[in-house]
Amino acid sequence: MTEKPWSGRFTEKTDTGVEAFTSSIRLDRRLYSYDIEGSVAHCTMLAKAGIITEEEASQLIEGLGKIRREIERGDFQYHDSLEDIHMHIENRLIQQVGKVAMKLHTARSRNDQVALDIRMYLRHESRKILRLTAELRRAIVDAAEAHIDCLIPGYTHLQRAQPVLLAHHLMAYYEMFTRDAERFEDGLKRIDVLPLGSAALAGTPYPIDRSHTAALLGFSRVSANSIDAVADRDFIVEFLASASLAMVHLSRLSEELILWASAEFGFVELPDAFATGSSIMPQKKNPDVSELVRGKAGRVFGDLVALLTLLKGLPLAYNRDMQEDKAPLFDAVDTLKGCLRIYRQMLPRLRFNAATMAQAASSGYLNATELADYLVSKGVPFREAHGCAGKAVGYAVGRKKELHELTLAELREASGQIADDVFEFLDIQKSVDRRRSFGGTATENVREAVAVARRTMAREENA
Amino acid sequence: MTEKPWSGRFTEKTDTGVEAFTSSIRLDRRLYSYDIEGSVAHCTMLAKAGIITEEEASQLIEGLGKIRREIERGDFQYHDSLEDIHMHIENRLIQQVGKVAMKLHTARSRNDQVALDIRMYLRHESRKILRLTAELRRAIVDAAEAHIDCLIPGYTHLQRAQPVLLAHHLMAYYEMFTRDAERFEDGLKRIDVLPLGSAALAGTPYPIDRSHTAALLGFSRVSANSIDAVADRDFIVEFLASASLAMVHLSRLSEELILWASAEFGFVELPDAFATGSSIMPQKKNPDVSELVRGKAGRVFGDLVALLTLLKGLPLAYNRDMQEDKAPLFDAVDTLKGCLRIYRQMLPRLRFNAATMAQAASSGYLNATELADYLVSKGVPFREAHGCAGKAVGYAVGRKKELHELTLAELREASGQIADDVFEFLDIQKSVDRRRSFGGTATENVREAVAVARRTMAREENA
Amino acid sequence: MTEKPWSGRFTEKTDTGVEAFTSSIRLDRRLYSYDIEGSVAHCTMLAKAGIITEEEASQLIEGLGKIRREIERGDFQYHDSLEDIHMHIENRLIQQVGKVAMKLHTARSRNDQVALDIRMYLRHESRKILRLTAELRRAIVDAAEAHIDCLIPGYTHLQRAQPVLLAHHLMAYYEMFTRDAERFEDGLKRIDVLPLGSAALAGTPYPIDRSHTAALLGFSRVSANSIDAVADRDFIVEFLASASLAMVHLSRLSEELILWASAEFGFVELPDAFATGSSIMPQKKNPDVSELVRGKAGRVFGDLVALLTLLKGLPLAYNRDMQEDKAPLFDAVDTLKGCLRIYRQMLPRLRFNAATMAQAASSGYLNATELADYLVSKGVPFREAHGCAGKAVGYAVGRKKELHELTLAELREASGQIADDVFEFLDIQKSVDRRRSFGGTATENVREAVAVARRTMAREENA
Amino acid sequence: MTEKPWSGRFTEKTDTGVEAFTSSIRLDRRLYSYDIEGSVAHCTMLAKAGIITEEEASQLIEGLGKIRREIERGDFQYHDSLEDIHMHIENRLIQQVGKVAMKLHTARSRNDQVALDIRMYLRHESRKILRLTAELRRAIVDAAEAHIDCLIPGYTHLQRAQPVLLAHHLMAYYEMFTRDAERFEDGLKRIDVLPLGSAALAGTPYPIDRSHTAALLGFSRVSANSIDAVADRDFIVEFLASASLAMVHLSRLSEELILWASAEFGFVELPDAFATGSSIMPQKKNPDVSELVRGKAGRVFGDLVALLTLLKGLPLAYNRDMQEDKAPLFDAVDTLKGCLRIYRQMLPRLRFNAATMAQAASSGYLNATELADYLVSKGVPFREAHGCAGKAVGYAVGRKKELHELTLAELREASGQIADDVFEFLDIQKSVDRRRSFGGTATENVREAVAVARRTMAREENA
Repeated sequence: MTEKPWSGRFTEKTDTGVEAFTSSIRLDRRLYSYDIEGSVAHCTMLAKAGIITEEEASQLIEGLGKIRREIERGDFQYHDSLEDIHMHIENRLIQQVGKVAMKLHTARSRNDQVALDIRMYLRHESRKILRLTAELRRAIVDAAEAHIDCLIPGYTHLQRAQPVLLAHHLMAYYEMFTRDAERFEDGLKRIDVLPLGSAALAGTPYPIDRSHTAALLGFSRVSANSIDAVADRDFIVEFLASASLAMVHLSRLSEELILWASAEFGFVELPDAFATGSSIMPQKKNPDVSELVRGKAGRVFGDLVALLTLLKGLPLAYNRDMQEDKAPLFDAVDTLKGCLRIYRQMLPRLRFNAATMAQAASSGYLNATELADYLVSKGVPFREAHGCAGKAVGYAVGRKKELHELTLAELREASGQIADDVFEFLDIQKSVDRRRSFGGTATENVREAVAVARRTMAREENA
Repeated sequence: MTEKPWSGRFTEKTDTGVEAFTSSIRLDRRLYSYDIEGSVAHCTMLAKAGIITEEEASQLIEGLGKIRREIERGDFQYHDSLEDIHMHIENRLIQQVGKVAMKLHTARSRNDQVALDIRMYLRHESRKILRLTAELRRAIVDAAEAHIDCLIPGYTHLQRAQPVLLAHHLMAYYEMFTRDAERFEDGLKRIDVLPLGSAALAGTPYPIDRSHTAALLGFSRVSANSIDAVADRDFIVEFLASASLAMVHLSRLSEELILWASAEFGFVELPDAFATGSSIMPQKKNPDVSELVRGKAGRVFGDLVALLTLLKGLPLAYNRDMQEDKAPLFDAVDTLKGCLRIYRQMLPRLRFNAATMAQAASSGYLNATELADYLVSKGVPFREAHGCAGKAVGYAVGRKKELHELTLAELREASGQIADDVFEFLDIQKSVDRRRSFGGTATENVREAVAVARRTMAREENA
Repeated sequence: MTEKPWSGRFTEKTDTGVEAFTSSIRLDRRLYSYDIEGSVAHCTMLAKAGIITEEEASQLIEGLGKIRREIERGDFQYHDSLEDIHMHIENRLIQQVGKVAMKLHTARSRNDQVALDIRMYLRHESRKILRLTAELRRAIVDAAEAHIDCLIPGYTHLQRAQPVLLAHHLMAYYEMFTRDAERFEDGLKRIDVLPLGSAALAGTPYPIDRSHTAALLGFSRVSANSIDAVADRDFIVEFLASASLAMVHLSRLSEELILWASAEFGFVELPDAFATGSSIMPQKKNPDVSELVRGKAGRVFGDLVALLTLLKGLPLAYNRDMQEDKAPLFDAVDTLKGCLRIYRQMLPRLRFNAATMAQAASSGYLNATELADYLVSKGVPFREAHGCAGKAVGYAVGRKKELHELTLAELREASGQIADDVFEFLDIQKSVDRRRSFGGTATENVREAVAVARRTMAREENA
Repeated sequence: MTEKPWSGRFTEKTDTGVEAFTSSIRLDRRLYSYDIEGSVAHCTMLAKAGIITEEEASQLIEGLGKIRREIERGDFQYHDSLEDIHMHIENRLIQQVGKVAMKLHTARSRNDQVALDIRMYLRHESRKILRLTAELRRAIVDAAEAHIDCLIPGYTHLQRAQPVLLAHHLMAYYEMFTRDAERFEDGLKRIDVLPLGSAALAGTPYPIDRSHTAALLGFSRVSANSIDAVADRDFIVEFLASASLAMVHLSRLSEELILWASAEFGFVELPDAFATGSSIMPQKKNPDVSELVRGKAGRVFGDLVALLTLLKGLPLAYNRDMQEDKAPLFDAVDTLKGCLRIYRQMLPRLRFNAATMAQAASSGYLNATELADYLVSKGVPFREAHGCAGKAVGYAVGRKKELHELTLAELREASGQIADDVFEFLDIQKSVDRRRSFGGTATENVREAVAVARRTMAREENA
């Protein structure tokens, strides 16, 4: 049967160009397993509610199982004229089990069916992404712990600002990806709602039991309004926004690795297995993975824009525009998963050049704030202390020295309050370890942050 | 003092064009009250921790109070050369209380200060938006209840599909705005984190008590990583994404009201007070409010894109780019609040033309699905029943009749299973009331949905 | 050979996950013919410049020809490990012609090669799009001419405003698509620049003749700066912006057709071959094509956002991020071409319901402006005349009459200046035909606009 | 008069919240001079066409002149209730010259009036932007010429790739901004079209002379379709797309300056007048201008997205949504102008550290390609030569030497073809000057490029 399920009142065949243009089978075939699983649950419920017989349900379920196996074996035929995965499966079911297949669509419409499939898909993928995020967070915590003794310049405005632990810097990314996970979890609450049973838009007169279908499919909630249920793609927008933020984080990390891998910074060496060379410049070792990830951020933002635009001004309930939700969603899911996976693999293999980083943290007056803080500890008001430290830096720049290379007499030009104990303040490692305010970079703080992170992740795993 | 707080090592004055270009005072002055409140809490904590004396804290707090009053009276002077609201207030404080003012910035940096201000601002505005959303949801529920007996065509593809209750259609928007509220609540969890005490990026050696500051300012959590705390604007992106979705919903509602107010639909009459006329066409009554809201959706999407772009590829920690977070944030907050407010006012004043809507719901074969369902109840498999109903419609279209205007004999041409009891099935109101599946449009369902909504909102109010 | 062309100094093999992540062969294989054509021209030039021998050039060109045939026969093998289409072809060439193949890359880099391929691709596709745009414009002009006698309400704010010719309304789209064509033409000027010979980024010491290569490949200009040439993707952004505007136009046309095909408007009937039905509602005839086109607009906007984001803040010259230019470009090209093609096919098959449109144009006081203009012609200042017409409308609304159904006495209540000749002014067709200002809707104007359009298109065709 | 111009048939006053929500006067008041200029031309044409008397025209024009002076003196009162600048001026004109003012709106509507104003505004601003772009291009060429002898590493993947002239690198930006100028010029062709005379949407029955109005206002063309003329905002989208690309270029330049100003690169020193310090870290000298410009790129992209979204799916002709075109347009114009202006000022004041750059260009094996090219000149096929050079680099890396620091014997380990003349090939300056292919980095080429640029700009100035 290549006859359309809705061809009853049509006198003319669909134009083949139109068939190709409107068909979504190339994209939505990836939903096949959700479609079959949803249909099986629907049948089971229909039988339980007495809308079809147990016998009919068995036939349908068996037929659906055969189709699943055909698809998974690669034996299934796809045609544009059958529009989408839902029609392909129903059509094949008719071939398999005959007329009873025509009962499968009782109390159901493609509108609630496609909403179901996409929710099942996105629930599955969100959970996968949560797992990948957890693995990446773990890799970050491992790297932080392994490099707890590395100093690195902390930057603002890409200017060296204050020395920090590399581990502290890495743990900033742990925080970001933890927030991403929270957002994907929050989004899951709104994905985890069964739309099936809303039919075309108005609900159905059949005595269906939606809670039963929800239980069979593992949904926590049942949608409360049939029109909303078929018109709603908010959960995809929310996912795309969370994915965009995760890509922002990955792009920031990428930018830093690209900088750090440059000759100028020299903070990190990429493993050969994660870099590529140049076809014309043999010395090059390019951070391609990080560059591609950075570039792919735009792709996910674009997917978000595509769906927001699509939904803007769309009247209720279902409109065919909504078929265009799949391309951006699938693209964003694939992109984000790919980027998380490659980073989780690459991160443990990075070789940090501790000496180069420490050297950078020791030059460029990163202890100027320390000098100001020292003066405050001597009773100088902060803003004034800041001015004195500035003058000392200006003096040191002129002599191409660091602050700790100045003599006490030179330092005292900036403020008479400076005494011999200043040099302890100017020591970089000590300066780092003094920053014990909660969230600060002192080694003991960062060790504690690592421990807290490990406990958090262990708790998540057992949840 | 127009001297810069950081001018210590600079030998040349800032170019005035640069001052104008880099100044943010025109925008961030709206943060003044959060800035002062944050400084007061910071002083209080500094004194409690013994970093400054109680006497100094009192002087500072009194001075800050005076400045607040100056600003609120409109007596405060703003200058581009003072860059931003933080410098304006600190500078004025020095004028007011002298040298002690220079202690205010102890254990603090503009980086954590601005992060604090923007979080306090967005926490406040998110709560306002939640209140406005609640009021709009209430207005929708009121309208639904008031029109529980109105029938309207439910549309898919902007084609009349099945009759539904107007109340059911309106309640779809209740669902959307309820989800928006959930998302703003979820976002608040991530806004409600105190960044103060992260200093420039590394934390501070002063023995500050961040939990105390958090308690004073009503924050539930304290940020765990100082670098992340000053580099993080995720919470703004998340807000902008939630705001974009709320604008999607407002744009969909607007599109429908614009359609409904057209001569062709004629479903709704706008109150004169909420419409405008044409300067050249005296008969026009334009749904300007809805059109503007629809147009403003793009504005908020643009704000979201602006911030995502800004953050993409930004290395840690603070970069001056981030000053550009304010324009899109303020624009989106103002836009969303304005749109929610105007809709909450307009909604109760709409006059629905019940007769026109009911007439539309009765014509155009909206009961064709009923006929198919009727045949299923007689044992015809769904897909076959669907085909029969399609033939009946084709026949009726040819005779310019509705299905219920056909004779039994004519109907039986489509299927021999059709009997006299079909006419009860074809009645529109009865068709609506048969759709009793959970979430369906039957009057009793919608009444229950209204009741549930009222209970939910009452619970929220008492929370 | 699966060895990388750049593996000289690498001691570790590329990770297979990295190979899959960084490979672009699935996408860029569609550039094969441009890549081969570019290589052939490059060889030819190298031989002419004496950099390789004629003999070598012949071998290379013959080998490239064989590879082209292999690809076109479907005999070509693709591997992620070979990264992209350029490496695939070069690698195969080595297998075919041996060591001489290694000379192909003389005075060339992948950076300028990929820039060449993408420019050749986009030049070709821009021209295709121009042809499709021309065909659509012709279809619009044909439809306008065929319906020169149909009246339709002109709308502002989706309120009926003034009667216009359907042909005039359609010709507005002719103007839009003509502007699109202008923009694609303008963009072509900036696409039509040969980057080859820029090598990696610095140019090459070989005595190449870039003008000769340009002539062989039909390029009008040669890029003037080698760094810019390999870093530039502006021409893609420009194309995506022009494509986005074309999609805006298609989305506006789609919105109108969706409205017009609704039961409420009833202005147009879609051919069965260009509509689909509903699986549950047999009476439905859905404007799927228009809905999908409207939805696809967001997709192209998203492509534009993706590339803008990618390029933002990218340092010179080539960065691997730029590999991500292909997905949005290919997607936008395919989407736009598909939408133009389907509209060009559908447009001639639309059946306009002239009677319904004329009826709509005659009711709803669309001649109110005429009444105001009539009063101006009697010497009443415009704003006052406008007020009088407004009052007459208010009176007529109250009596459920149109203006031309009022008596002279009734009309004179609004203004004493109204006389018997007013009724000629209130006639709809006459009202239309009076609007003879250039660009106005009078029938003679629209006929002339159609004639001008035909002359313009004929000129383009001969250009 | 605060009565609305369209209040004829309304029985209820506009809600003040609605007035505030729908008013655009806060934004569109900046169009006042275009509005007045347009009205003066309209009057002049009306009189010439005999639609009003010369006497009336004089009165109107004199009144408009007075209003202009009031506005420019700051004596003009603005009220939300008067909606927009058009109504403000018309209303004030009535106060000034009485009833005759009511004739000003003859043969005109706000729809074509606002389209005119925005076109006049954007024509003016586009020309300003062209001038600013020209000044920036000149500053770039000056900087290139002044630094013709500076070597700098050329980068790909932010890895040092090949040495180039700083001047060549700078001239890449000259190319980009020249393309921007071309795009703004192309856009001007589509801005430069008079919409006035299209009236509300259908044209007008008055015997107006649109060509005369166009001549008076300096427009080259007159719009050909009245519906399109009032519904068209394409020219704004096109401008925003061109502005977005210009911001891409400014963001790329900014990224590079931020990198170059870092301690790690140390290629450039910012003048104190164009940098700011840190309130807590006295040693900092932050590239704020470049950071802000980079951040502002997102803002302009957001403006583009806002307008594309707004126009998507908008039916013809005017819809109130379109009022929302002004916020993104004005924001983008201001942002782009500000960024161009500050860069044109800053560029000549940058101090490049020639020694640091040259040192960077000499280390990191940037002459590896030279070695490969040398081998090719000895008859080794390119790909093989590339492999040899790679091996030499690997060897040198292991010994922490540069290629030119290896002995001949060491070099010959990589290839027996290497002879004594290799060292001349490995010299950096010579390597640069050998790249004489058109567009390459050889000093003589760059000098010529500078000369060509100067001729181009001189020609533009005289055009």
